[in-house]
Amino acid sequence: MRARIGLLGCGTVGRGFVQLVDRERERIRARTGVELEIAKILVRDVDKPRGVDRALLTTSALDVIDAEVDVVVELVGGVHCAGAYVRRAIDLGRDVVTANKALLAAEGRELFAAGRRRGVRIGFEASVCGGVPVVRALQRGLAGDSIESIAAILNGTCNYVLTRMEDDGLDFDDALAEAQAKGFAEADPALDIDGDDAAQKLRILAGVAFDAPVRSVRVHGIRDVTLAEVEAARSRRSVVRHVATARRVGGGVELRVERRELPEQHPLAAAKGENNAVVVRGRAVGEMLFAGKGAGSLPTAAAVLSDVVEITAQFT
Amino acid sequence: MRARIGLLGCGTVGRGFVQLVDRERERIRARTGVELEIAKILVRDVDKPRGVDRALLTTSALDVIDAEVDVVVELVGGVHCAGAYVRRAIDLGRDVVTANKALLAAEGRELFAAGRRRGVRIGFEASVCGGVPVVRALQRGLAGDSIESIAAILNGTCNYVLTRMEDDGLDFDDALAEAQAKGFAEADPALDIDGDDAAQKLRILAGVAFDAPVRSVRVHGIRDVTLAEVEAARSRRSVVRHVATARRVGGGVELRVERRELPEQHPLAAAKGENNAVVVRGRAVGEMLFAGKGAGSLPTAAAVLSDVVEITAQFT
Repeated sequence: MRARIGLLGCGTVGRGFVQLVDRERERIRARTGVELEIAKILVRDVDKPRGVDRALLTTSALDVIDAEVDVVVELVGGVHCAGAYVRRAIDLGRDVVTANKALLAAEGRELFAAGRRRGVRIGFEASVCGGVPVVRALQRGLAGDSIESIAAILNGTCNYVLTRMEDDGLDFDDALAEAQAKGFAEADPALDIDGDDAAQKLRILAGVAFDAPVRSVRVHGIRDVTLAEVEAARSRRSVVRHVATARRVGGGVELRVERRELPEQHPLAAAKGENNAVVVRGRAVGEMLFAGKGAGSLPTAAAVLSDVVEITAQFT
Repeated sequence: MRARIGLLGCGTVGRGFVQLVDRERERIRARTGVELEIAKILVRDVDKPRGVDRALLTTSALDVIDAEVDVVVELVGGVHCAGAYVRRAIDLGRDVVTANKALLAAEGRELFAAGRRRGVRIGFEASVCGGVPVVRALQRGLAGDSIESIAAILNGTCNYVLTRMEDDGLDFDDALAEAQAKGFAEADPALDIDGDDAAQKLRILAGVAFDAPVRSVRVHGIRDVTLAEVEAARSRRSVVRHVATARRVGGGVELRVERRELPEQHPLAAAKGENNAVVVRGRAVGEMLFAGKGAGSLPTAAAVLSDVVEITAQFT
C-alpha cells in the first residue's frame, strides 16, 4: 500500500522529516507494508536551497491539502494559518499529524471534536517532549488506569539554562544566550523562559490524561532566577528545576508551571541540559518516568513519522 | 458497544485485573464507548474464596475460550497449557492479551504469525516491565525511528537484592529472602537470580525493536555477587546492577544479561528496589529512559487492561 503525505512547512523539523522518511522508508515498508511518499510540500520560498526535490514544492497550502494525499503533516507552526489548514484537511477527510503545541493548546478541543465527527485521526505525539512517546503512553499505554498526577520538565531551554547555571556557574543571561546559540530556544525566547511553552505542552498532556476540565492555571517563568539561588539549593543537596504539574482537584484539573527546588534524588532532578522528563502517577501503576530529548529536528521528526506510520499502517 | 472478556487464570494478576475492570469500567466507557464485561473466568478451584462472582468461574478452559467472547486474556502462565489456549483462541478468531513472558519468549514468533494469518491482535504490554508501557513505545511510539540498542533492568527481584545490599549492607541471602517475603520473586527464584526471567523479557523487547534475528545470547545471574563487591563499587561512586542489553551486530541482534558496574550518574543506576528501567537508543531520537514498577498485581493488571482497551476501543 502506498500512503501519500502532504507536508505543510519545511523548516527545521520539516527538513528532518523529509530526511527521515527517506532513511526509514524501506524499514517501514518491510515492517508495515506501507510505502510512504511525500507528495507535496508547502514552503514560503521555493528557491531557498533545502536539499529537497523542487518539483514537490509549492507556495500554496491548497495545492498540498487538496491534492490526493492520505495524511496532512502540519509543521508551519503558529495558530492562525495552521488552524485553517488543519480544519480544511479535516473537512476533506484527511488524517492529520501536527507538532503544533500552540495550536493544540488553543484549539485542540474543537479540532479533536471536528476530527471525530469527520472520522479522521489527529496525531500529535511530536507536540510534547519531542521524540519521547509520552502522549501515546498516556493515551494508550495507561488506558487501563486512572492518572492521578503529572509532574514534568517540558521546556528544554529552561532546563538548559538552569542546569548550566547549576553545573558551570553561569549567570542567567549567559546561559540563555548559549541556549539560543545552540538553537534550543524558541524564536521568541520569552515563550520559553516565561513558561508559556511549558504551559501549552502541559495543557495538551492534561487533556490526554484527565477526562476533566482545567479549573486553574498558574504560570511562572525563570527570568528572575539568580545564580545565588541555584547555588544555595546545591548546598542543600537540591536542584532548581522548572516544573509543570497537573493534578486532579474538585471537579477538574489544576495546572501549575513554576520554578521548584527538588531534592537531588528526585526523578526530575536527573534531567540535564535540553532534556525533558515526565513523571506520571497512576492509581494502579504507581509512579512512572519518561525522559529524553525534548526537541530538535530529528527527534521531533521521528515523533511525527511515528504518528504517520501508526495512522497509515495496520499493526498486528 | 459491549466487549466480552474471557479470563484464563485468576491468581495475583487475574484478581487485580477483575478489580481494575470494575474500578475503571465507567471511565473507559465514557472515554471509548466500550463497556467491558468479564464473561467467564478459568480457575483451578471454583471453591477458593477470591472475591469474584462464582457464577463466572469454570474449571474448563474451553468454557472460556469457546464462549461468546471478544478477547481472551491469558494469565495462567507457563508455556504448555497457555500456548494451547492461546493457539485455540487465535484459531477461533479471538483477540488475545497475555502477560506470559515465558510463552512469548519461547513461541512468540509462531503465535504472532498465526495471529497475523487469522487477523487477530495479540497484546503483550504486561509481559515486560509491568505497568510501564515500553512495548507500545517500541512498537508504535518509535515506529518512525531505527532502534540501535536497548539497555535495561528487567528483573525486579535482582534489582531489589542488589539495591538492598547497596543501601543497607545486607548480604545476598538475606536480601533475597526479603524479596521473596515481599512477594517480588518468582515462585522459583532461580528464574530471577540466574537471569532467565530478564532474558525472556529482553528477547520480547528485542523482537519488537529489531527486525532482525537473534545471533547470540549470554545470560549470567547474580547468585555469586558479594557484599564486598557491591561496597567496592560504591567506593568508586558506582553501583552494581543486573543489566540486560540488546544491540545490532552484523546480520542480527546480540543479547546479554549480566551484572555490570555502572557509574552512579548512569540512568539505570537510579532504579532502586523492585523498579524496572529501560534505556532505548534510537538513531534519530537519541537516548530515552522509561522507568517504573516492573511487577505487582495492579501495575501488571493495568497493562493487561490497557491492551484490552486498545484492542476493543476505537481511539480517536
